[in-house]
Amino acid sequence: MPDALKMPEPELIEHAGLDSAVYLRIYLLGLKIFIPILFLTWAILVPVNWTNDWLKLSKATYSDIDKLSISNIPQHSHRFYAHVVMAYAVTFWTCYALKKEYETVTKMRLQFLQSEKRRPDQFTVLVKNVPPDADESVSEAVEHFFLVNHPDHYLTHQVVVNANKLSKLVEEKKSKQNWLVYYQNKYERNQSKRPMMKTGFLGLWGEKVDAIEQHITEIERLSNEIAEEKENVKSNPKAIMPAAFVSFKTRWGAAVCAQTQQARNPTLWLTEWAPEPRDVYWKNLAIPYVSLTVRRLLMAVAFFFLTFFFIIPVAFVQSLANIEGIEKRASFLKPIIEVKPIKAFIQGFLPGIALKIFLILLPTILMIMSKFEGFLSISNLERRSASRYYLFNFFNVFLASVVTGTVLEQLDTFLKQSVNQLPEIIGVAIPQKATFFITYIMVDGWSGTAGEILRLKPLIIYHLKNFFLVKTEKDREEAMDPGSIGFNTGEPQIQLYFLIGLIYAVVTPLLTPFILVFFALAYVVYRHQIINVYNQEYESSAAFWPDVHGRIIGALVISQLLLMGLLSTKEAASSTPFLLALPILTIGFHRYCKGRFEPAFIRYPLQEAMMKDTLERAREPNLNLKGYLESAYIPPVFKEAESDSEDDDDDEIGDKKWAKDNVLVATKRQSRKNTPVPSKMSNGSSPNLLELQEKDKP
Amino acid sequence: MPDALKMPEPELIEHAGLDSAVYLRIYLLGLKIFIPILFLTWAILVPVNWTNDWLKLSKATYSDIDKLSISNIPQHSHRFYAHVVMAYAVTFWTCYALKKEYETVTKMRLQFLQSEKRRPDQFTVLVKNVPPDADESVSEAVEHFFLVNHPDHYLTHQVVVNANKLSKLVEEKKSKQNWLVYYQNKYERNQSKRPMMKTGFLGLWGEKVDAIEQHITEIERLSNEIAEEKENVKSNPKAIMPAAFVSFKTRWGAAVCAQTQQARNPTLWLTEWAPEPRDVYWKNLAIPYVSLTVRRLLMAVAFFFLTFFFIIPVAFVQSLANIEGIEKRASFLKPIIEVKPIKAFIQGFLPGIALKIFLILLPTILMIMSKFEGFLSISNLERRSASRYYLFNFFNVFLASVVTGTVLEQLDTFLKQSVNQLPEIIGVAIPQKATFFITYIMVDGWSGTAGEILRLKPLIIYHLKNFFLVKTEKDREEAMDPGSIGFNTGEPQIQLYFLIGLIYAVVTPLLTPFILVFFALAYVVYRHQIINVYNQEYESSAAFWPDVHGRIIGALVISQLLLMGLLSTKEAASSTPFLLALPILTIGFHRYCKGRFEPAFIRYPLQEAMMKDTLERAREPNLNLKGYLESAYIPPVFKEAESDSEDDDDDEIGDKKWAKDNVLVATKRQSRKNTPVPSKMSNGSSPNLLELQEKDKP
Repeated sequence: MPDALKMPEPELIEHAGLDSAVYLRIYLLGLKIFIPILFLTWAILVPVNWTNDWLKLSKATYSDIDKLSISNIPQHSHRFYAHVVMAYAVTFWTCYALKKEYETVTKMRLQFLQSEKRRPDQFTVLVKNVPPDADESVSEAVEHFFLVNHPDHYLTHQVVVNANKLSKLVEEKKSKQNWLVYYQNKYERNQSKRPMMKTGFLGLWGEKVDAIEQHITEIERLSNEIAEEKENVKSNPKAIMPAAFVSFKTRWGAAVCAQTQQARNPTLWLTEWAPEPRDVYWKNLAIPYVSLTVRRLLMAVAFFFLTFFFIIPVAFVQSLANIEGIEKRASFLKPIIEVKPIKAFIQGFLPGIALKIFLILLPTILMIMSKFEGFLSISNLERRSASRYYLFNFFNVFLASVVTGTVLEQLDTFLKQSVNQLPEIIGVAIPQKATFFITYIMVDGWSGTAGEILRLKPLIIYHLKNFFLVKTEKDREEAMDPGSIGFNTGEPQIQLYFLIGLIYAVVTPLLTPFILVFFALAYVVYRHQIINVYNQEYESSAAFWPDVHGRIIGALVISQLLLMGLLSTKEAASSTPFLLALPILTIGFHRYCKGRFEPAFIRYPLQEAMMKDTLERAREPNLNLKGYLESAYIPPVFKEAESDSEDDDDDEIGDKKWAKDNVLVATKRQSRKNTPVPSKMSNGSSPNLLELQEKDKP
Repeated sequence: MPDALKMPEPELIEHAGLDSAVYLRIYLLGLKIFIPILFLTWAILVPVNWTNDWLKLSKATYSDIDKLSISNIPQHSHRFYAHVVMAYAVTFWTCYALKKEYETVTKMRLQFLQSEKRRPDQFTVLVKNVPPDADESVSEAVEHFFLVNHPDHYLTHQVVVNANKLSKLVEEKKSKQNWLVYYQNKYERNQSKRPMMKTGFLGLWGEKVDAIEQHITEIERLSNEIAEEKENVKSNPKAIMPAAFVSFKTRWGAAVCAQTQQARNPTLWLTEWAPEPRDVYWKNLAIPYVSLTVRRLLMAVAFFFLTFFFIIPVAFVQSLANIEGIEKRASFLKPIIEVKPIKAFIQGFLPGIALKIFLILLPTILMIMSKFEGFLSISNLERRSASRYYLFNFFNVFLASVVTGTVLEQLDTFLKQSVNQLPEIIGVAIPQKATFFITYIMVDGWSGTAGEILRLKPLIIYHLKNFFLVKTEKDREEAMDPGSIGFNTGEPQIQLYFLIGLIYAVVTPLLTPFILVFFALAYVVYRHQIINVYNQEYESSAAFWPDVHGRIIGALVISQLLLMGLLSTKEAASSTPFLLALPILTIGFHRYCKGRFEPAFIRYPLQEAMMKDTLERAREPNLNLKGYLESAYIPPVFKEAESDSEDDDDDEIGDKKWAKDNVLVATKRQSRKNTPVPSKMSNGSSPNLLELQEKDKP
């Protein structure tokens, strides 16, 4: 763990990619924001709150925590000005820290882009909605259009094909090959008996046949189908989508094409930057353009209903999942359940179980919704899921906890109130919920992070998979593969803590240390995890930072509005105009940042493109760009289908050979599927860290 | 007038420009929308409303008009479904007509751009916020940047200089020259006496001097100052603004530069399409970039206060401007005022006079505000003023009339209500105000248009100017110059009628014929005026259409919300969900139009640019583009200052010569300052129309 902290940031970027390094900076940002806030609020507000006797006099039930919070101050008190001043201080400090961070991340991103080795997506643009032409195919149409309109810069193109059916066949074949290996292993262990299997579904019924021969025939059949399908896809015009990856001779040409409108009809010939080849979500390229709007609308409506009405099906399932219900329906389980300890366990466990299962499944549901919407890159999908998850959390974890009860119940009340009473209703409830949130931070935040370092959940899942699903060595490795850091599950969680922290910073300063401990702990743990455990699935060069920034600004504005509501219930009405300026200033600050920094995350300036091109031409004048780019954007199923008889290593070997020829940036971390690696459970550090340590030795 | 209607549209475009032709289409659009609505609503709703006895039974005071309106239907009636269905019909028809119109205008615009002769702004981009460099001047910095980043396309550039002081001197000189001509004329008429003038302010005090000699010396002095200032401006680096007009060899190069981000810092090297040379508002080029945001914020706040609180100073002035007040303050006027007819006139006239004067001055105030905000082209200024004027009208003419009283008084009430009561409050008042709006349309719309054909207001102003200000023939011509059509005063008026028409279409169908008469009358009148009277100041190729479209959509959504409010007071609550879908559909339609059509008004597609370039190269391979573009964007003050001793004709002659060399599009209408033209009052048709009629003869 200490090693994890010692690694300097540039090395971290090289090791794990810019995305991961910037993800860690979110935790650091939390620390940067909240440490001075802690000192300020504790130095000023706690004495102000403590030296009051309001709660004592009001004879209401209270705890010491309440004594430290704003509830302790009587109505009309002038002490509220201290809180107003503190709100200003919190706002200014947060905005200052955000601005500094945005500047730094922008600089890191631009530096990263500048120093990056050559990558196919720097030269490539994704063209969508190519208009159909009776005379020529999509491929010819694309070629002609770009030769005419970008004559000096167009290089080559790769038409997008609908390879979904092909990839299904390839998947099926891989699975059958896996079973074949399993049966072969089983046979080798026990040569006397040939393994048998039933041909029915999941091997539960059907006639008994020789397993190995069955699988070999199946695999042959699938190989033929795959070859046939490949031919079909290449020649059938219906399988060719009106989209293409177009590559240019220079980054400048690609930057120009990506930022300009090509045709008279602005919905045709849409151009945008192509994502990295490994970042492309191939399945969604086959979605026709017209249905995209409809899909987005459907998903927006579905998300609305999910957020506000999810409690209905959950409650329904809950009603089934009580003990009496189970005993009625599955009476054969009755003797087991009646045993006392099991009964007690189930009684404590069941009531919340439907909700818990739903919450566990929620990220997956949101990801499926995002996939349905038709985004084309995995990074985009994750960002979309993350923002939806955050919204869901905001409404159903935060607001629901504060106003007690699900948003469905409260929706009625909200609609009847006038707009400016809304902050009051919520504001009043906030100090009362301070203790609840403290426990929430401790349970969800601290122990969640502790579980992360132990990788408790993956451990459980691994053993489950091992018991039920793993048949071959390959499966075992797949089960152990930790995957990527999962931006769409981790980041909304952090944002919720920002929200809670900012709201309670002025209201109940006692909460701030808990948040700080969480950020510090999570930073250390995740730094270790990123270096030693997780793989990087794609590199988006910190494209998510504008979303992160926007959500923190949102949290800040919400905290200001709620403070206004709270203070108006305390009849410190004269403070309201002062506080009203705060959201306006914050939103103005956000717009400034948007204009000043966000374009670096969306557009590639021509000056940068020209600089990089010039440098590259100076260094490598004889670069064969066409060969490099021609096969960059072929869907992986084609490459896999071609190498079906070879080992999976060939993909990597092919990449390495390509890398030698063309100095392609190789990811430092190889997929664990291919490198023999001792089990993580027994060996604390990974081979890569050992490599790095050896490199560090003089 | 019949001739005016007969002129076919393409000829109208050639004669008066696309802007004017599309402006007329707004009236046509009004007709297209409201004629079917008239038939539908009268066919269905009037019988539905008429055959009720609600008002009779309720014993409230009502008129026949109310019998025809929705007030006649009792609570809970099922007849409201007819109204809901009609609201849907109105929405669908309006959206359909809008879409058709948007398509047509877009096609007209693109066709116009395609067929246009060469213009300097097709090749030029305005670059703002050039970063300061210690080593090189702005001119060198611009040259180097574009040679590096747009190597194949950059042609030349013209740095922007702060010529405000120079233009003031030139103005002063022109005015002195005018006085000189006046005095010379006076002398010629009466050779015996040399004209004398006093040197003080407005000639009211000071020593008497010989006028002609005085003026000659002044003019000499000014000429020297001007020459000095010109040198100063050219050489002094402080006078050079960090902005430049950069011209490219091809339209393609200019289109690329205008649509892409140039530099790493998105606030530097900002590029946008250059406006036409005659459309540039030179004064505002001297505003530094940083202060633009501050200015916009200031003007936004000022506009807010103007809209909501203008009544305070107006009421103050009003309080002074009553008869007693005048008698007190200017007692020397007392004898005049006490005369009965005058007293009666003043008593009828004064009470509203402060408000009337304010409303007359309002467009000028808004234009000054827009100029302060720093827009760079006159077309932009007019669009901005138009949208502000519309907002002002909406709040203070429409809403104020409906809820009786200024918005200031109502603001309090609004804030206290909850959000969903707002449509109800306004909705209830609407049917009651139907008669008021009918009179408004008749007074303001019909007679305003009638006054337009008589050109009453300009006639009055002409005579006033003639009496007080005109000294020379030049002045007389200037006073007669009708100027351009004044988009910023005319269009908001039309939009208000759209709003009233759409709101009352379903509520009180009786109003619709009045609106229709207005649109028809205005169409005929303005067609005539545009052909025969107005000059075109600039050509923006109908760039205002997205604003017009957006405002009509806004009017439609407001009408839907108000209908919802109205129906909920009638306790036809079951209709609310049906009506709720309407605004959502309308906004969805608006977004579709925005995505599908608006880019044609903002961006120039590369395909179009390439087509035009190729055509031009094919036709004129030996074009000297550099000579053409080099002097296109020199501020007019320089050209005027150079030709100070020549006649003003030289500008036009210079243009004509240029036109012969370079096939520059010459405006058909020459400024009347230069062509000897009989007075409009005596001769009905203009020379140009005669020309056109002659052209039409076979």
